[in-house]
Amino acid sequence: MKKIEHIGIAVKDLEASNTLFAKLFGKAHYKTETVKSEGVNTSFFKVGPNKIELLEATKPDSPIAKFIEKKGEGIHHIAFDVANIEKEIKRLKKEGFIVLNETPKKGADNKLVAFLHPKSSNGVLIELCQEIK
Amino acid sequence: MKKIEHIGIAVKDLEASNTLFAKLFGKAHYKTETVKSEGVNTSFFKVGPNKIELLEATKPDSPIAKFIEKKGEGIHHIAFDVANIEKEIKRLKKEGFIVLNETPKKGADNKLVAFLHPKSSNGVLIELCQEIK
Repeated sequence: MKKIEHIGIAVKDLEASNTLFAKLFGKAHYKTETVKSEGVNTSFFKVGPNKIELLEATKPDSPIAKFIEKKGEGIHHIAFDVANIEKEIKRLKKEGFIVLNETPKKGADNKLVAFLHPKSSNGVLIELCQEIK
Repeated sequence: MKKIEHIGIAVKDLEASNTLFAKLFGKAHYKTETVKSEGVNTSFFKVGPNKIELLEATKPDSPIAKFIEKKGEGIHHIAFDVANIEKEIKRLKKEGFIVLNETPKKGADNKLVAFLHPKSSNGVLIELCQEIK
């Protein structure tokens, strides 16, 4: 794993949170993107080599809506940048992690992504991601 | 803010979690440290320019014990590396964030640290940290 690619934060109101995080970082988000398959609107902030991804649900059965209902707004997942996502999925399965996407899927920000179930990783939802070339 | 310095993860059993995260990253933690004032044992993993800090409570009234009791194991805070922590504290107070440590305190890993209350930052506990020279 090469670095923390981004931290995903579940928010209720993307516009209000964009304003809040712009105050935190002293600069605005640099892009927004809707991932229809996941039921989310996203916005991205850069912090040096890392990113913060804000996630707002677009429908009541979006995983983000369910997360907020259960736990409230807050950190949703950590995404790690990997060189070869297929290889990492195989390696982590062998190590006993529960891989939720055996075949990586298209995520936000031009990435192939796969998630590890939090129950196999200390309550942390982990995303593996690899830039699509 | 220069980068995500680390992500803090609350765990029940540091030894078990060290083994788990060593499997995740394909390498062992590179150090452990006890911060008596905070009631925590910590261990650190490097992931490129970032770190993962595992946090285990050393006493029942440790903030980590209370966090796990309320929310279970999982992501506890995001720490951002800042160039001038005093200046950032002043700037963020003016922007309306609730700064829990108006004077930065000594944290783990040779850092001056200050926390922002999650209720002023979308449910995210944010740590500012600056290396002590």
